[in-house]
Amino acid sequence: MSILAFLSDFGLKDPYVGIVKAVLLGINPSLHIVDITHQVAPQDVMGGAFVLGSAFREFPEGSIFLAIVDPGVGSKRTGLLATTKDYTFLAPDNGILTMAFRRSEDVRCYSIENSRYFRHPVSNTFHGRDIFAPVAAYLSLGIRPSSFGPVCPDPVWLTWPEPAVKDRCIEGEVIYIDGFGNLVLNIPADLISCHHLNRAYIKGIEIPLLRTYSDVEAGSPLALIGSSGFIEIAVNQGSAAELLVVDVGEPAVLSQT
Amino acid sequence: MSILAFLSDFGLKDPYVGIVKAVLLGINPSLHIVDITHQVAPQDVMGGAFVLGSAFREFPEGSIFLAIVDPGVGSKRTGLLATTKDYTFLAPDNGILTMAFRRSEDVRCYSIENSRYFRHPVSNTFHGRDIFAPVAAYLSLGIRPSSFGPVCPDPVWLTWPEPAVKDRCIEGEVIYIDGFGNLVLNIPADLISCHHLNRAYIKGIEIPLLRTYSDVEAGSPLALIGSSGFIEIAVNQGSAAELLVVDVGEPAVLSQT
Amino acid sequence: MSILAFLSDFGLKDPYVGIVKAVLLGINPSLHIVDITHQVAPQDVMGGAFVLGSAFREFPEGSIFLAIVDPGVGSKRTGLLATTKDYTFLAPDNGILTMAFRRSEDVRCYSIENSRYFRHPVSNTFHGRDIFAPVAAYLSLGIRPSSFGPVCPDPVWLTWPEPAVKDRCIEGEVIYIDGFGNLVLNIPADLISCHHLNRAYIKGIEIPLLRTYSDVEAGSPLALIGSSGFIEIAVNQGSAAELLVVDVGEPAVLSQT
Repeated sequence: MSILAFLSDFGLKDPYVGIVKAVLLGINPSLHIVDITHQVAPQDVMGGAFVLGSAFREFPEGSIFLAIVDPGVGSKRTGLLATTKDYTFLAPDNGILTMAFRRSEDVRCYSIENSRYFRHPVSNTFHGRDIFAPVAAYLSLGIRPSSFGPVCPDPVWLTWPEPAVKDRCIEGEVIYIDGFGNLVLNIPADLISCHHLNRAYIKGIEIPLLRTYSDVEAGSPLALIGSSGFIEIAVNQGSAAELLVVDVGEPAVLSQT
Repeated sequence: MSILAFLSDFGLKDPYVGIVKAVLLGINPSLHIVDITHQVAPQDVMGGAFVLGSAFREFPEGSIFLAIVDPGVGSKRTGLLATTKDYTFLAPDNGILTMAFRRSEDVRCYSIENSRYFRHPVSNTFHGRDIFAPVAAYLSLGIRPSSFGPVCPDPVWLTWPEPAVKDRCIEGEVIYIDGFGNLVLNIPADLISCHHLNRAYIKGIEIPLLRTYSDVEAGSPLALIGSSGFIEIAVNQGSAAELLVVDVGEPAVLSQT
Repeated sequence: MSILAFLSDFGLKDPYVGIVKAVLLGINPSLHIVDITHQVAPQDVMGGAFVLGSAFREFPEGSIFLAIVDPGVGSKRTGLLATTKDYTFLAPDNGILTMAFRRSEDVRCYSIENSRYFRHPVSNTFHGRDIFAPVAAYLSLGIRPSSFGPVCPDPVWLTWPEPAVKDRCIEGEVIYIDGFGNLVLNIPADLISCHHLNRAYIKGIEIPLLRTYSDVEAGSPLALIGSSGFIEIAVNQGSAAELLVVDVGEPAVLSQT
């Protein structure tokens, strides 16, 4: 039994997620489909890249990922099939795999071109149903990646907002805000220990870098190592996004006292 | 292993969806349950009919559909078990199967009356749990449709808003707005080609009928053939519902230049 | 095949629910995971307790429940593994199992302490992934409850808002508001019949206690026995929460005419 992990911006109001699953199960009834999320903001490729990149390494080796945030559907952008040391990914070639690629070894990409594995007729608006779902299902049945199309030598990578590591501080920014209002920074946790940092600054406010939520009183902000491996700014039993009125892209700095 | 596709207006905040699945799996542990959506607007039978009607034909032959939008629960409306050439449907007899019936052959309906297959006691507010779920589960185990009740000769059909096909135009209306803000019209795609139509008009605005989103600039509106087989009015990388401030029922016309 | 029923306040926008499922399936690929809800209000332990307590008895004997609403994650609160006559529960020891315990026999609790069954390193912010998911998965494989830690003699119970049964009336309050706007009171249905009550009062408004929604006109309020076994105040084809402008905690009285 293969696991097929599914991420999209389809939302849950419409039948789109169910339709993709119907096509998948029509071809491979024994697929075990796991939703990552379908509430990526519409057409937010960068948001989808972060959510996928945070989640995929928790899945068992051999899992297949279907990641569909696809503002260019029906245009000339190609579909991508990417294999890595442990996983396979299917997605439009628009950069949504950027963070997954950064965290993977042995990335190899193919352009999905072999229409023999498509659902026909292929619509101009729903390649999730007509191309990615059937290709994912056939792949899960053991069809080799190279059967779906030629090697793609230069998949799209998004420009990643790298943090600036200075002498006594690291300058970063908010790259994701989760449903609890936690602000995820683009600063990996392993940069902290070697730099002895213990303070965060955002919008001019100084916030202590601590171990866990309850190290401050309910309603107070703190910075800590988040579960995705990045530094987060949070509020104990509250929402940092609401308290600090912050959006994605807001600069943040970690420094020594 | 049977597929049970499940649609409702239960929402995802409350335990109702999980409770229905618990009852289903308690009777048939090998059912493969696939959610279509549970975010039909509360008691919006017509919206549920559209979503179900757009989705069901993608499912494998033999799938069972549970469609519960049930403003009349506890009143005298009966429960319906409908078989078609390829599928079985369970739903309150309130018209929610209208679009599915329009797209099916060999429709045959039964009234669900045999309380031997119900969960007892039967509540007055949650027939999804007490009647439809156990009946669906027993049906998936091979109990014959006629075991659940007598033939129902006249199930409820909603009045479908048929488009008016004129000499050089088709007059229709918006029947569904999806989560991306796409406006689905009641005009089937196959009417377009034979009438050489290439323009849509909605709220006095002229919109070109094109092939795909990227045929216009980001932020601009277009009409195109949607994935459900109907004409849609959309905005490339945006929301037509927001740009045009439109609700379900808004008139729209397709015509020649 | 075991059923693992999963409830949390993780929401559906972020990858947290998918990550927990990935960890579960990595250890026990044959688990059948059923979502109860992931839209408990952030950190609302009492709301989570109600939703879990309303749902769990519908699941087949032997089901495992994972209930994660965890404002104290990373602090000294322990994790709880509770066995009852029919089920097993895993949750932070913060009272979220209170209503389930009230409706169960033979409750026995263990503190989850054996780090041999944890995912390492254990984060300070996501014990759902690092502790509860792997413990649940190993438990589903047959590891004995006592292997995970010592007996916990005094798990946290929330103070339950008991109704006050008077001579000719019962004084209660709203304990939950569902997605349809139905107001669930803390008054069990079986108290009604023995007291011959037929009227509800909330915010000074008198509301008849009837059998089902359609016993009043569309848009009118009524009280009735809800599917969770408690009295509810509802509006036929409408929202009582909106019509009556009520929040959780609002007092309500049932009485004789």
